[in-house]
Amino acid sequence: MAPQLEPFFKQVDELSNSFIDRLRKAVAIPSISASDENRKDVFRMAHFLASELEALGAEVEQRPLGKQPGKEHLDLPPVVIARYGNDKNKRTILVYGHYDVQPALKEDGWATEPFELTVDAQGRMFGRGSTDDKGPVLGWLNVIEAHQKAGVELPVNLLCCFEGMEEYGSEGLEEFIQSESKKFFKDADAVCISDNYWLGTEKPCLTYGLRGCNYYSVSISGPAQDLHSGVFGGSTHEPMTDMVNILSKLVDPQGNILIPGIMDLVAPLTEEENSLYGKISYTMDNLHESLGSKTNIHATKERTLMARWRYPSLSIHGIEGAFSAPGAKTVIPAKVIGKFSIRTVPNMESEDVNKLVFDYIKAEFAKLNSKNTLDVWLQHDGKWWVASPKHWNFTAASKAVKQVFGVEPDMTREGGSIPVTLSFEQATGKNVLLLPMGSSTDAAHSVNEKLDKKNYIEGTKLLGAYLHYVAEEPVSEA
Amino acid sequence: MAPQLEPFFKQVDELSNSFIDRLRKAVAIPSISASDENRKDVFRMAHFLASELEALGAEVEQRPLGKQPGKEHLDLPPVVIARYGNDKNKRTILVYGHYDVQPALKEDGWATEPFELTVDAQGRMFGRGSTDDKGPVLGWLNVIEAHQKAGVELPVNLLCCFEGMEEYGSEGLEEFIQSESKKFFKDADAVCISDNYWLGTEKPCLTYGLRGCNYYSVSISGPAQDLHSGVFGGSTHEPMTDMVNILSKLVDPQGNILIPGIMDLVAPLTEEENSLYGKISYTMDNLHESLGSKTNIHATKERTLMARWRYPSLSIHGIEGAFSAPGAKTVIPAKVIGKFSIRTVPNMESEDVNKLVFDYIKAEFAKLNSKNTLDVWLQHDGKWWVASPKHWNFTAASKAVKQVFGVEPDMTREGGSIPVTLSFEQATGKNVLLLPMGSSTDAAHSVNEKLDKKNYIEGTKLLGAYLHYVAEEPVSEA
Repeated sequence: MAPQLEPFFKQVDELSNSFIDRLRKAVAIPSISASDENRKDVFRMAHFLASELEALGAEVEQRPLGKQPGKEHLDLPPVVIARYGNDKNKRTILVYGHYDVQPALKEDGWATEPFELTVDAQGRMFGRGSTDDKGPVLGWLNVIEAHQKAGVELPVNLLCCFEGMEEYGSEGLEEFIQSESKKFFKDADAVCISDNYWLGTEKPCLTYGLRGCNYYSVSISGPAQDLHSGVFGGSTHEPMTDMVNILSKLVDPQGNILIPGIMDLVAPLTEEENSLYGKISYTMDNLHESLGSKTNIHATKERTLMARWRYPSLSIHGIEGAFSAPGAKTVIPAKVIGKFSIRTVPNMESEDVNKLVFDYIKAEFAKLNSKNTLDVWLQHDGKWWVASPKHWNFTAASKAVKQVFGVEPDMTREGGSIPVTLSFEQATGKNVLLLPMGSSTDAAHSVNEKLDKKNYIEGTKLLGAYLHYVAEEPVSEA
Repeated sequence: MAPQLEPFFKQVDELSNSFIDRLRKAVAIPSISASDENRKDVFRMAHFLASELEALGAEVEQRPLGKQPGKEHLDLPPVVIARYGNDKNKRTILVYGHYDVQPALKEDGWATEPFELTVDAQGRMFGRGSTDDKGPVLGWLNVIEAHQKAGVELPVNLLCCFEGMEEYGSEGLEEFIQSESKKFFKDADAVCISDNYWLGTEKPCLTYGLRGCNYYSVSISGPAQDLHSGVFGGSTHEPMTDMVNILSKLVDPQGNILIPGIMDLVAPLTEEENSLYGKISYTMDNLHESLGSKTNIHATKERTLMARWRYPSLSIHGIEGAFSAPGAKTVIPAKVIGKFSIRTVPNMESEDVNKLVFDYIKAEFAKLNSKNTLDVWLQHDGKWWVASPKHWNFTAASKAVKQVFGVEPDMTREGGSIPVTLSFEQATGKNVLLLPMGSSTDAAHSVNEKLDKKNYIEGTKLLGAYLHYVAEEPVSEA
């Protein structure tokens, strides 16, 4: 056991109520990056983080990113960067998180006020951003505070990079990371990102792969304005009719992508890789619990994990411009925009995927013989990422998990996309580790998002222990 | 020429600015019946109408309709009923209109504030409710006022029935009409409804048929909550995937309804009926102008008019519960509700249509092999209606059109549904005439709804002239 962990752990337990208060304050700030009117709250959240870090003695800067492209009346929220420790004899770990959140309205179906942290009898802490990603971000602050109060020296230099636009495409961050690669980030020996989730609810994991995401819009327009369906139904081509036809040709109900050529881009499954999935601690019950339903497509955990990690998927998110409210409206929408995205995996290159998508949709639309007008474009893309799990960065995290939770972590990949992972890997040239704090039932991006108290407090211990093992781990090959 | 029309017409011209002011006041009241928070405005509009009618000397009542079914915290807006004249030697004409309007937000794409009547250089009066149906309703008030100020006696007794829930299914009205059939409505010799539109922009029409409307919801649900598409894409059946599949099987891009059996319910086209369509004053240019596009399905006016009047159509209005905002959200919606409606024609009975729709959708859903759950139900229905155009009620209106506009009106049917038409026919046992005021480009239910000043002022003359011819017309057979 690393000598100085016991006092740190004890201090974390003693400070747990204060750590929960810190999260409560953060959740109370509705830092929704997608909403214009909440932009001031995103800034408020940046100031909150910066002042907490300053109070802990870190050197903090709030770096402006300029105006928001396409919304020039809005300033992008700053990147909060901080350095804690500057000892040349220590390793330097760069940690990333985001302080913005997804939209949330009580009337979406939340059982509690989304921006009031509400802790229930089971220790579930409900609130928008609790698990994604305010809890993990504050975890690093908690680590510093607990070390200080326990009188234990932090065994590494810590560089923090916390952004405020993650839920809206990380606008401006890529350029920032590139421009700071030889400046603020230059000392980094490895990178740690806590912005994903355990596979289940009991066992921590280390994540070495992510799917990418290509997000598309397809618009179909016809009449110059919305029409009354009684007056015009039957005499004009209707954009919604064409839209559901096009969207129905993208993916079948069993999740098979119907766009020809997409599956040819996917790296073949090797025997070696195939043998890994059986060992992962995961059951179909875990999936059912996360879904809240038994609507699984695949019968086995192995096939389910492969579908999530190493095969692409296509989801249809919704349609802009059509009637979407409760009740009945007899409208023929004049212009509708379908939104869908493809989760990408090795070796799908974004440009190749785009070409297949665009060509197919245009060809299918031509078959409809509609006089409406179609357009299709990429809204944004983020590449998939796979790292080496044999690097000392992963070994250290693995030992920390063993220390705090008493188990070996699963080595996993993730279905979601965290584009910044790839950006940090490319900018620093160093190994990137994903070290999640929350569990699979946390409902990030959904109603009733939560972080379990246990995950937050033991997760804070894990982040601290990881830094201690990082300090001790010999250099690895990978 | 009926002797007393000239002074009445002159008076209408002299009062035209004051009539436009009356419409301006009415449009300024956002009497949106579909919106809970605007219910007070719907009541405000009822009070406005009632006080205007009282000022003209009518006997007015605001009849309460009780609580709104399913929304018992809301009172239904009253039916404003009024009697003007009670002379046993005169015919009694019952007129109907509605004082509620469709929702409207500036950001939907309005060029002007939707609840501020804005008159442009071409005399187009923009504003929500201008043409649907506040302009026509106020037309009757204008008729009374112009008669009074011209010193001309109104040649009929007028019964007014103005409702406030037309744009939300006319909740409560059917029962009201039935219960008043032998009371307030018992003297009516004929009914006149001004709540539809000219076929084009130049020539008035009299309307003797309407399509019905069966409005359906189909819900598909799976996961217990919205999911992150990165985490769960590929491992769960997605309700949106199933939804676009189901919706794509209802109607093809050429407007053909794909539900087996529906077309078998439609009355066959006779040679006699077929010969009528060529005479109607309508061109494909009229259609293109109304659409603001050349997205017509049919090449000829005859086939276009048949598609609108005497064949059913199916429109997909939108999807509730999916992502519908601008931007990008990587969500798998947990429950989505598709909305579509079928415009019905003779001899489609609602129950037969429902059975075909429900059976087909359930069968198609079963073919998808999805573990999601589907439900489909009728939101509301209104039957089609066809009247006799040879009745004196129509003859009188035809002569009035000739008088005011110098042309014979087209005898038309309508694609839209006005369920109250059938209710009045059944409750009074009398002929019902639809006498539109607005033109085909008025964009009812859409952004930039308008009523042309000419249609409003000459339309007011038409309503008055109609009453004079009604008073003179001999009894007809039909």
